Amino acid sequence: MPFHTTRRVEFHDTDMGGIMHFTGFFRAMEVAEHELLRDLSLNVVSEDDQGRISWPRVSAKCDFQSPAHFDDVLDIEVGVARLGEKSVTYRFRFSHDGRPVAEGEMTSVCCRIRPDAPPSSIPIPAEMAAKLERAL
Amino acid sequence: MPFHTTRRVEFHDTDMGGIMHFTGFFRAMEVAEHELLRDLSLNVVSEDDQGRISWPRVSAKCDFQSPAHFDDVLDIEVGVARLGEKSVTYRFRFSHDGRPVAEGEMTSVCCRIRPDAPPSSIPIPAEMAAKLERAL
Amino acid sequence: MPFHTTRRVEFHDTDMGGIMHFTGFFRAMEVAEHELLRDLSLNVVSEDDQGRISWPRVSAKCDFQSPAHFDDVLDIEVGVARLGEKSVTYRFRFSHDGRPVAEGEMTSVCCRIRPDAPPSSIPIPAEMAAKLERAL
Amino acid sequence: MPFHTTRRVEFHDTDMGGIMHFTGFFRAMEVAEHELLRDLSLNVVSEDDQGRISWPRVSAKCDFQSPAHFDDVLDIEVGVARLGEKSVTYRFRFSHDGRPVAEGEMTSVCCRIRPDAPPSSIPIPAEMAAKLERAL
Repeated sequence: MPFHTTRRVEFHDTDMGGIMHFTGFFRAMEVAEHELLRDLSLNVVSEDDQGRISWPRVSAKCDFQSPAHFDDVLDIEVGVARLGEKSVTYRFRFSHDGRPVAEGEMTSVCCRIRPDAPPSSIPIPAEMAAKLERAL
Repeated sequence: MPFHTTRRVEFHDTDMGGIMHFTGFFRAMEVAEHELLRDLSLNVVSEDDQGRISWPRVSAKCDFQSPAHFDDVLDIEVGVARLGEKSVTYRFRFSHDGRPVAEGEMTSVCCRIRPDAPPSSIPIPAEMAAKLERAL
Repeated sequence: MPFHTTRRVEFHDTDMGGIMHFTGFFRAMEVAEHELLRDLSLNVVSEDDQGRISWPRVSAKCDFQSPAHFDDVLDIEVGVARLGEKSVTYRFRFSHDGRPVAEGEMTSVCCRIRPDAPPSSIPIPAEMAAKLERAL
Repeated sequence: MPFHTTRRVEFHDTDMGGIMHFTGFFRAMEVAEHELLRDLSLNVVSEDDQGRISWPRVSAKCDFQSPAHFDDVLDIEVGVARLGEKSVTYRFRFSHDGRPVAEGEMTSVCCRIRPDAPPSSIPIPAEMAAKLERAL
């Protein structure tokens, strides 16, 4: 995987089962996606001469392999699993001290964002696609 | 208190201490505020002939008296504690089966919302103030 | 789908894109799962003569079809998509005024819960399986 | 203030108003409290020869001075405002690029935690109190 980050499990992330609630992995994936983009000099919201471009999410999934506990510092590997003409799928691998914790994927679609109109998908601009390719 | 609602403690609201995490009370207060407004035929975001009006929050506090557990259906009493020229303070009382659980307050300021400018406080329009007075 | 519930999008569920943040759908799925179980006279945590039984989640996924907005009351259909010897997969369909909003799945494994030991999977007790079958 | 940390506003922290939802400040305060404790070689949950000690929260409040936006890295100053025989009050000051953003307080009570009994308050053990005094 081309990018690596970490995230500490916070108290509010836990549930009465004593472990990180599963929704915490989805928050962590989104933050790791944004860190990857920043690392590639990209941003989830950008502007070109025709206006705003953003990346609405069309799917997210996660398999949970072992629990994460309060104060665990999770290792998160991130990469681009698939780069389509209009969409990108990120893959995430969570571990703790070498033990696999979870694996997830999220797919986002490149969209023109206009006020007063729903987002419409567009081909990923060439310069962005070139940067995302570096994380394949 | 002039208004009453209920809210079930959901699994994701709990923490590893086995009880509702304290931030859950603040989410519950906001939802109860919006239910009170709806009951008064008001809305947190509204429009008049000069544009948009909304209510940015300037303070929130809560005292925690006893724990709330998963699946508890909390009773929430809500009222307007203070109605100023430009602001309103709501008071909230949480209980479960008659046992006091928490008490909180939140203060919001009536603001004109303009694109590309920070919110600026305005006197609460007379018609709104009249409705809010009914919850004093 | 054998079970139906609703859920209002709350202010804290929204994000700066003006729509419900995608993690809100996973919270909603968990709550709908618990409502379905309650409807079947089951509970996510139960006790038998050998101790505690619970249902750790092993996977969750969601496809997002159209946005949900503040105050939308979402319709949520829930059913059991697959009932294995030791696991159950729930399916969820979100819509708003007939418009499809999202579709998701979550799989949980029936586990014996012991203090000081990790959960270990067990065959779903016959009485529970019979109830879950009613939601297939 | 004796302790300083930072926290980046994440996408899921924002709401449809385009700013960090107010509950995000309470999550940030709790995390900053735990970082201060760690810095003092303390932990929110500890053990002595009589069992477990923890710090249930009895109140939390926050005044909101100016908005925080996605990707803002907030500066957070933390200190002990009051140290009682059985309780500690933390104070928090949030700013961004020198602009005041929010100020909050939280009070926790030192409690003996026993299984099957509600937490009961105890005097703060001398060694802990000595460490907390360093953050006054």
